[in-house]
Amino acid sequence: MCAYAGRVVAAVDLGGTKIQTLLFDEHLTILARDRRASVPHLGAEAMITAITDSITATLDNTGGQANLLAIGIAAAGTINPSTGSADSVNLANWRDLALVGPLQTHFGCRVQLENDGTAAALGEFTHGAGLGATNLIHMALGTGVGGGLVLDGRLYRGISGAAGELGHIPLDPLGPLCGCGSRGCLEQYASGTAIARAGTDLVASGGSPILSAMAAGRPVTTEMIHQAALAGDAGASAVIATAGRWLGRGLVALVNVFNPDLIVIGGGVANLGNLLLDPARQEIAANAMRPAGPAVTIRTSTLGDTAAPLGVAALLLG
Amino acid sequence: MCAYAGRVVAAVDLGGTKIQTLLFDEHLTILARDRRASVPHLGAEAMITAITDSITATLDNTGGQANLLAIGIAAAGTINPSTGSADSVNLANWRDLALVGPLQTHFGCRVQLENDGTAAALGEFTHGAGLGATNLIHMALGTGVGGGLVLDGRLYRGISGAAGELGHIPLDPLGPLCGCGSRGCLEQYASGTAIARAGTDLVASGGSPILSAMAAGRPVTTEMIHQAALAGDAGASAVIATAGRWLGRGLVALVNVFNPDLIVIGGGVANLGNLLLDPARQEIAANAMRPAGPAVTIRTSTLGDTAAPLGVAALLLG
Repeated sequence: MCAYAGRVVAAVDLGGTKIQTLLFDEHLTILARDRRASVPHLGAEAMITAITDSITATLDNTGGQANLLAIGIAAAGTINPSTGSADSVNLANWRDLALVGPLQTHFGCRVQLENDGTAAALGEFTHGAGLGATNLIHMALGTGVGGGLVLDGRLYRGISGAAGELGHIPLDPLGPLCGCGSRGCLEQYASGTAIARAGTDLVASGGSPILSAMAAGRPVTTEMIHQAALAGDAGASAVIATAGRWLGRGLVALVNVFNPDLIVIGGGVANLGNLLLDPARQEIAANAMRPAGPAVTIRTSTLGDTAAPLGVAALLLG
Repeated sequence: MCAYAGRVVAAVDLGGTKIQTLLFDEHLTILARDRRASVPHLGAEAMITAITDSITATLDNTGGQANLLAIGIAAAGTINPSTGSADSVNLANWRDLALVGPLQTHFGCRVQLENDGTAAALGEFTHGAGLGATNLIHMALGTGVGGGLVLDGRLYRGISGAAGELGHIPLDPLGPLCGCGSRGCLEQYASGTAIARAGTDLVASGGSPILSAMAAGRPVTTEMIHQAALAGDAGASAVIATAGRWLGRGLVALVNVFNPDLIVIGGGVANLGNLLLDPARQEIAANAMRPAGPAVTIRTSTLGDTAAPLGVAALLLG
């Protein structure tokens, strides 16, 4: 704990599995950090309690004397600015989750709600892997697949603030049904959920003794598949490579449409690194248009799960 | 012919099948127009001759006294600004076609080269169906499928000037091979070429007596399929509806990624009107994300083949 009596902003990264709050001073220095489980399955009230507890924990951690200027929420799902709520197709009980009102009431300060993909794009652009880029696409591969767009150096949000739903590029009319109601969306191939599902199928088929031993009956995770691939498990490597090729098809669409100089891959799945990205890059080399294909660099996030809170804090202080 | 001795700009719409030149005064009033066949099959030199002849014809039409300030070329294909050339995956003999140099030499004035989809987007935005829009996507369905993007009220070109290749959104990994080298691109379903091919297959299958009679052994065109559908030919209607649904899948990708307020469909195929667009709109209603899906309007071009020359003329005078 470090006593701090100056002005601060709290930035909350609100996802389906975790809540993370970072407390920043006015120079975007991180003063405190809190992580805890997200509890969408327990309902809206429990979610608000968990968020307020997380913010309060960061304030307490600086001695409880800080002057809270504003709160930024970088939330998974689609943001409705008029109701101050978020709505996710990937998460049960995450339908029109009102966030701004309850937090304003509790803390008595301004609360700004932003899509987590958009916030992370801005974070990477101003402080991370996107420094110096002109046209940056940020794709976050997590429970779902989100994204954010910085075009000609400016955040692009679309007419309703809903731009950047990069997980819902339809790639196969006969593909798996998606939470959004469509079929064969990128999210069904390259999200952590999709990769874990492919790993589960692999274990069920008996095709991967190493991954089966790692899982030992527990739910298969992307991280287990990663470790199994690193340990030489061909089936696990194939699961990652297949996800990478589908990711690449989605990136081909984005490269042809946006002709960006940089695509940053973030989210937990980005930890797969080049095992995932090399097949995606090969897909771009083979199938993207010229000159757009050769003009783009694909790299992983440098800020990791700090990108979204940093981005939303930059917005609050911008 | 009307004698005009003031300053003019010539705007050339350069496609795979036709060359169209419009001569504008400085207030973007159309003074003269010339249309002639495009001759990519005859090689680069013949193309340059056809373009210079077309421009000269418009100048002659105003009495030969006009002061030619600049020439704008809205060309199909990918523009390379450094070499002043255009490159199309759809057209044979349209590889790195040098345009700027020969025309500068011939006319002794500034020559600006722009992608035709980008130029048409700007034309519709400033003078056509896109007036008042904030985020406008223009999709041109012709021999190929091109496009242009106006985002937050500004033309968006991408890092190499190659943004807006909307025809090359991959929609089916097992779809037809595309000229770009990929498979199942939107262009393989919703271009005039693709629709005519589907009509040809329909005639060959004996499934459409009306269309067969209209074609009478000639190559099937999109316009014939349109007329057959209007005459009650179920097979022809199905060809258009299928193209519309695939178009809709491509538009779903664009709606989810851009959250635009307006998508303008131009090019010759736009003449199919709601026979094509209603199935596309149904696809968006069923499969696009909220709130982006309900936020977008899909309409056809109001400027038709004047959009691209008007856009490039506006750029020259802007």
